[in-house]
This record gives sequence, C-alpha cells and structure tokens, in this order.
Amino acid sequence: MRAALDAAREAAQAGEVPVGAVVMHEGKAIATAANAPRRLHDPTAHAEILAIREAARILGHERLEDCDLWVTLEPCAMCAGAIAHARIARLFYGASDPKGGAVEHGPRFFGQPTCHHRPEIYSGIGEAEAGALLRDFFRKRRT
Amino acid sequence: MRAALDAAREAAQAGEVPVGAVVMHEGKAIATAANAPRRLHDPTAHAEILAIREAARILGHERLEDCDLWVTLEPCAMCAGAIAHARIARLFYGASDPKGGAVEHGPRFFGQPTCHHRPEIYSGIGEAEAGALLRDFFRKRRT
Repeated sequence: MRAALDAAREAAQAGEVPVGAVVMHEGKAIATAANAPRRLHDPTAHAEILAIREAARILGHERLEDCDLWVTLEPCAMCAGAIAHARIARLFYGASDPKGGAVEHGPRFFGQPTCHHRPEIYSGIGEAEAGALLRDFFRKRRT
Repeated sequence: MRAALDAAREAAQAGEVPVGAVVMHEGKAIATAANAPRRLHDPTAHAEILAIREAARILGHERLEDCDLWVTLEPCAMCAGAIAHARIARLFYGASDPKGGAVEHGPRFFGQPTCHHRPEIYSGIGEAEAGALLRDFFRKRRT
C-alpha cells in the first residue's frame, strides 16, 4: 500500500484526483499506476484500470488469477467490473468512497448475481493517509 | 448499429465474444471497436471501452459530452461505469444481457446514487441480429 500511496501523491501533483494502485504477482509489484484520466485524455484511466492493463500486458494473459490489487480508494463500478473480469484474487483498498464506490456502496457489485468473480476483499488499509490525500486535494481545488 | 454489428462479427471471427461498439460525434462514427480481451491480453478490452478510449484520444478530451455510444449488447458494470465517466450523451444497445448486463440487470448502475451521469438510454436496436450472433458463437464454442 506504500507504493500505491506514493502513486496517489504523484496523481495529486499532476492535478489528478489522488488515487494509486499496484498489482502484485508472486509477492512482487509488477504494475503501479496513478489515476490519470485528464493527462491521458482517457475517461477509463483510473489507477486500477491502468495497473490491471499493464499487469495483463506483462503476464501476456487477460486473466490475473494469481494477482492481488492494492488501491488507495474503494473501486468504482468500472474498476470493480474490471477486477472481476481480470479474476484478481485479492483486493486490498484504503479509504471507502460513499460518493462513487461500488464495493460497499451503490451497486455493491461483488454481491450481484451478474458478477462472475468475487475477490477476497480487505478494506481500511492505509485509510487515514489515503483519505487525507483526497481531502487535501479537494480542499485545495475549491480554494 | 450496422457498423457495431459488423464489428461484432469481426470479434467472432477472431474467437472473441461477438460484441461491437461505435462512438458517434456530430453524426459521424469516430471510433469503432470489436470486443478483444483475448487478442489484446487486456481484461478491460470490451468493445465499449476500446471505442470510448479511441474517441477520447481523437477528440483530445476525457469527456465525450456530445457523443453517443452504439453497442450490440447491454453494457456490463465496467462499461456502464466508463460510459458515465465519459459523460456519453445517449446509449443505444441491442441485445439485453441477463447474465452480465448492468443497465437493466444486476447493479442497474445508471439508477444508483453513486452514478454521476446517466445517458439517455435506448435498448433493443438490432436486438435480433446481435442476439443471434451471440447464440451462434456460444453454440459453436460448446461443440
């Protein structure tokens, strides 16, 4: 989660909502990404999507069955869907997101009958730091 | 929808689940894509995601507020989330998808309070042909 928080800080410095993600495979971080939809002109460029795509490219397979995803914020519906499609084994996330999250809020996607893979889920890891980064970012943007 | 169905047929010929998508901007098709997660080794490479990413790249902006998306199958949670993030104006889709759809099934994402943009939605367009392509694909795969 340390590397994911570092990526989130990089996102903030680039003017993006500070979220970072890391895909781990056999104990190694194989893909780390910062949220970047503005910089990349890509509405799908959330940290999770970028890290999953990079890991799948590296492993040469569209399924990441032996991989874990660490992300600083509760994934949205788009990212939760991608996590299921990728068959991610375990999901670790930091701050919860009542406004846009899709794990413990809104669609609660992994509990839906249309969800075909549910990772093990661990939340609240690095929550204080992840949440502080987000609050700080939005406070600065409002002023 | 004609171009989206053609893209779906291309997907089937490449051994991918036959789904196709087109992004329209000011009356012109600016991005057309076939479902390609296996070929691209990318679990996020659904037709909608590929078409949205390409359209955003062409327009140089992560929001596609003046764009419509045509897709042969009801979008899943990942793609519905991307449609909302991209601020797609109108969504036209063909066959409904009780097993994986997220518009009229499962999460019914666009009706969730955590969904921040709801396109106008028109379903059942080219449904018979889109559904036949899918049924034919899965029948052949089982034999």
